[in-house]
Amino acid sequence: MHPSPMQDEAEAFHQALGDLVRLQQHRARDRVAFYGITVSGAHALEALERLGAVSLNRLAAELFVDKSTASRVVDALEYRGWVARTVDPADRRALHLYLTDEGLALHDQLRADAVWEMQAVLAGMDPALRHSTLGFLRDLARTSALHAGATDASCCQ
Amino acid sequence: MHPSPMQDEAEAFHQALGDLVRLQQHRARDRVAFYGITVSGAHALEALERLGAVSLNRLAAELFVDKSTASRVVDALEYRGWVARTVDPADRRALHLYLTDEGLALHDQLRADAVWEMQAVLAGMDPALRHSTLGFLRDLARTSALHAGATDASCCQ
Repeated sequence: MHPSPMQDEAEAFHQALGDLVRLQQHRARDRVAFYGITVSGAHALEALERLGAVSLNRLAAELFVDKSTASRVVDALEYRGWVARTVDPADRRALHLYLTDEGLALHDQLRADAVWEMQAVLAGMDPALRHSTLGFLRDLARTSALHAGATDASCCQ
Repeated sequence: MHPSPMQDEAEAFHQALGDLVRLQQHRARDRVAFYGITVSGAHALEALERLGAVSLNRLAAELFVDKSTASRVVDALEYRGWVARTVDPADRRALHLYLTDEGLALHDQLRADAVWEMQAVLAGMDPALRHSTLGFLRDLARTSALHAGATDASCCQ
């Protein structure tokens, strides 16, 4: 069966987004190495900043890794003083992970570095096209969220 | 210091791409669970399809995880018959990982599912905007690759 033009276009989008994600991860590895943190560690900081204090299980789910992988990532962050554990007030048997002040400062620095690099990359692109593309990417995220059966698209307003 | 409009825009792109990546990973988890594979496992299949036979070290670097994490992901794939090991003809002490026929078939199925879903999401978007956005995303990947100091941008033609 010959693929339809719509299917060709969907393949091309799938490929382009995949390339972009891989490149961003490559760049992230170069950036984070400077601070003595891994890409997985940086993703964990980012998730904790976004979610607030959460359990290890919740963090593992958010990072799409199993619990033992998440545990090793968190141990390294805790050792460096970027993450700490606290008892959940609602369930004293449960431990929650949270960013320390140092962890938050590192998160903000990593984010600023990423935004600075994005700014340098965007500078070479047509402003009108930048604007329409940003709208498109947000719509795409919203539509994906609806397809995913999200009750709201609060992730990507 | 008040952020410039360019900086605001770069922040917005950083945010939109991050949201999109997280959503795609959420969707991937739902899709792959049907086949009894994890998101990490699916990423490994995708990398092996793209790279051909490679060492565990190379695969770990490609997935941005440490060697022991990559090893556990690969063990699970090998157990299911999707990945196998072979001796590197150039260095008989080195083992290379590669996709089996079953692994390749699963990879192709996962990819077809992802493309099908992308097609459904794109169907609601303006065709002219789809076209210009695709071009923009490819340019963005190419420019990112050049910033990353790639000698060529063969990743994303």
